[in-house]
Amino acid sequence: MVTRPRLFQFDGAVSREPVNPNNGFYMQDILSVSQFNRENLAYLFDVAEEMRELVRRVGACDLLKGYVMACVFYEPSTRTSSSFIAAMERLGGAVIPITQGVQFSSVAKGESLPDTIKTLEQYSDVIVLRHPEVGAAKIAADVAEVPVINAGDGIGEHPTQALLDLFTIQEELGRIDGLHIAMVGDLRFGRTVHSLTKLLTMYDVRLSFVSPEILRLPLDLMNEVRAKGIPVYETYDVADVIEDVDVLYVTRVQKERFTDLNAYEQVKNYYVITPELMKRAKERMIVMHPLPRVGEIDPAVDRDPRAAYFRQVANGLYIRMALLAAVLGKA
Amino acid sequence: MVTRPRLFQFDGAVSREPVNPNNGFYMQDILSVSQFNRENLAYLFDVAEEMRELVRRVGACDLLKGYVMACVFYEPSTRTSSSFIAAMERLGGAVIPITQGVQFSSVAKGESLPDTIKTLEQYSDVIVLRHPEVGAAKIAADVAEVPVINAGDGIGEHPTQALLDLFTIQEELGRIDGLHIAMVGDLRFGRTVHSLTKLLTMYDVRLSFVSPEILRLPLDLMNEVRAKGIPVYETYDVADVIEDVDVLYVTRVQKERFTDLNAYEQVKNYYVITPELMKRAKERMIVMHPLPRVGEIDPAVDRDPRAAYFRQVANGLYIRMALLAAVLGKA
Amino acid sequence: MVTRPRLFQFDGAVSREPVNPNNGFYMQDILSVSQFNRENLAYLFDVAEEMRELVRRVGACDLLKGYVMACVFYEPSTRTSSSFIAAMERLGGAVIPITQGVQFSSVAKGESLPDTIKTLEQYSDVIVLRHPEVGAAKIAADVAEVPVINAGDGIGEHPTQALLDLFTIQEELGRIDGLHIAMVGDLRFGRTVHSLTKLLTMYDVRLSFVSPEILRLPLDLMNEVRAKGIPVYETYDVADVIEDVDVLYVTRVQKERFTDLNAYEQVKNYYVITPELMKRAKERMIVMHPLPRVGEIDPAVDRDPRAAYFRQVANGLYIRMALLAAVLGKA
Repeated sequence: MVTRPRLFQFDGAVSREPVNPNNGFYMQDILSVSQFNRENLAYLFDVAEEMRELVRRVGACDLLKGYVMACVFYEPSTRTSSSFIAAMERLGGAVIPITQGVQFSSVAKGESLPDTIKTLEQYSDVIVLRHPEVGAAKIAADVAEVPVINAGDGIGEHPTQALLDLFTIQEELGRIDGLHIAMVGDLRFGRTVHSLTKLLTMYDVRLSFVSPEILRLPLDLMNEVRAKGIPVYETYDVADVIEDVDVLYVTRVQKERFTDLNAYEQVKNYYVITPELMKRAKERMIVMHPLPRVGEIDPAVDRDPRAAYFRQVANGLYIRMALLAAVLGKA
Repeated sequence: MVTRPRLFQFDGAVSREPVNPNNGFYMQDILSVSQFNRENLAYLFDVAEEMRELVRRVGACDLLKGYVMACVFYEPSTRTSSSFIAAMERLGGAVIPITQGVQFSSVAKGESLPDTIKTLEQYSDVIVLRHPEVGAAKIAADVAEVPVINAGDGIGEHPTQALLDLFTIQEELGRIDGLHIAMVGDLRFGRTVHSLTKLLTMYDVRLSFVSPEILRLPLDLMNEVRAKGIPVYETYDVADVIEDVDVLYVTRVQKERFTDLNAYEQVKNYYVITPELMKRAKERMIVMHPLPRVGEIDPAVDRDPRAAYFRQVANGLYIRMALLAAVLGKA
Repeated sequence: MVTRPRLFQFDGAVSREPVNPNNGFYMQDILSVSQFNRENLAYLFDVAEEMRELVRRVGACDLLKGYVMACVFYEPSTRTSSSFIAAMERLGGAVIPITQGVQFSSVAKGESLPDTIKTLEQYSDVIVLRHPEVGAAKIAADVAEVPVINAGDGIGEHPTQALLDLFTIQEELGRIDGLHIAMVGDLRFGRTVHSLTKLLTMYDVRLSFVSPEILRLPLDLMNEVRAKGIPVYETYDVADVIEDVDVLYVTRVQKERFTDLNAYEQVKNYYVITPELMKRAKERMIVMHPLPRVGEIDPAVDRDPRAAYFRQVANGLYIRMALLAAVLGKA
């Protein structure tokens, strides 16, 4: 065949050379909080701060122009998928949104997760995966050549949530070392509590765990925390800690984790953070919540400047922008 | 921590400074037709004309580059969501599409509308909301710091539909004052008829209302029209007005509004606009319809140049582009 | 009204003039494999090769900036819709994703396919349509002024799949003429087999058809192949052809095509391609599959360099990029 002149010269293209391939994240999968240390967290939070500056000043940039993110949600999570989609878009990248959660046509026809992943990576440069089964993200990462980011695998891990939680503490209070952090609510099934607790054991903190008896932190995790020498206090009553804490991390009691609805009804409203309770808290402290909430925090608390949970949502955007840029070698 | 050089300099960024913050729309919510007057409608239609020129000449621009629109549809509406998505994309902006309508994961977990909105606004610069309940858009607007555009709240308002309807009359006939406009079909439940009628009372028009007895225009709206001094005529038969009208605005009898299906069956095909009927209409007049139609207009009428309903759809794109640009201060 | 200066000068706009309106595809609908010949296939494959180069080097470009693709799937197909979405995005274009397949609100209200298409074309520059009914794409193309690309109409056609299949053979083996291609599996209902077979009859090939008796190639298609003078061989056993074939095109027995589930159970695992079987195949040959697979190919075969089915998926991206650029006159 006669060679003809190329019809286009890649107008508008941005180089795909990594600008920082030695950032410790380049082409890595993000599967678990256990893969982070204080050093790479400091790097990531530094990039996330830049992302916040970027969003506030100009909204978006072309850093990931030319990159496509497949957003694959086997179960719906509006908050998480929206956050990843906005993150990719604000970096100039494109998104394949597969967020229905209901009926993946290929899956309905019997396709395996590895085959679905190996298919989608042909179209994309990074895969964000939400799946109801523990270990699904690892399976996907093992077969994919592109980076896989775990956006939650059942009762397993949800590392980007833990990262944004820790980043929020850093941003709101200027440090992590030296703080007293209380986890409140469902500490037994609460995936976010477990992941954040693991990250916090790398810092010089004190931890309090406030829950009803049947929702106490699992023993193995408690032992892990103690083994690191972290001072720990357990109580049934948030009033026991409210005056001293720097961070009150409140969680929803998740109805879907209970098989016995009576047990759920007994504990669902065990804790309610109210303006009255907040009067007893320090002037400089924050209330966090991974959201959605269903009653654990009185909406009247929203007006309190210490209510950090919606700023926490925004931090999720910056952290995910930082992660996407980092795994693609652009930060 | 040692300060390191910024990793990127906001490549491809566009200024977020409003170019026209005094346009009367900047950072405003768009909730109801009652917030418009002849002056700001003239401004909006002027911008919409530019948008049409833009789409025809170059398809898209970078006016809203760096901005993200959350498109949140609690009930599905393919036409409206597609129109808003295309509008944002043709302005260079990005979209978070939440258009499933079925199962919002957070909502399923019990999250309130205010919390969902306060979450999504952390990711986005403008929120387009469709909700089955009257007043939902107002609730959202009250809590959101970003502008909220009502894309329909149940039997309440659907202001962008009314705007595109009025814009279509202006574009097709060059004016609104002096026209005779007939509304045909379901005038009782038809949200679009009510909203357009309200807008038209600001102009010097004559209005005819053509419907079966059980679908007549509600008395309070009729009184509101009469109080403005608008000449009104009511009839059961479209033949009574066809020879005189400048605009024939036809609507579908919406089965979903009837509890008595027998009543629906009796009126559903009460009116059919046919080529024969169109022979009696003026040479310069238009037939409009908010679509979808199910039989009120014979498809043979589509070839008639006076059939304006698909051009009306395109006008929806231009109006929504104009609104998005206006509320973000870019028009 | 006083003319005011235009508020923006179409920043970031790219010319919409076709650069190559005589490419044979410009503004054409892509409905069936029957509209292709060796000449326009050679052109298309040449462009697709450029697209691969583009994706590998820079990921994306601005060739279709300013263009919007409506991706309208009346039935879900994650693979196909993702491929088209990524294709449009990597060309710099925008997408209206209507991929739920479940509940089109307008359709639920009784809207006809022509009306839906005439609506969506007001927002978009090209429509990609998946529909469960044979002939739907033709109906859409007849009413649309923008190009319509058939992404599968029931048991009818799925031309882009056949194009990517043929392109894969060309790319993997450097030619099509002179090859021996065996189709294996469900040759009766397999839409992809039928379409690829039709394309192959334009080349100088030998074809083998391997299937259980009840899933043999339909007689009319077999006669069409023979009428072109193509040497044909039919067998029940893949072992009969494995040593000689250049291409082994394996398909899934589609459970959803069977009304008698007993009949399905009898044939579903009739063929399994294993590493043992592959030992008998030539060194330079390829195994293809349109995917998803459910057991016809042992995953252990994936490590065999002759396993081409995931590279075949990537070729789907390049072919669809080429088609989109071609119908919009940009290639």
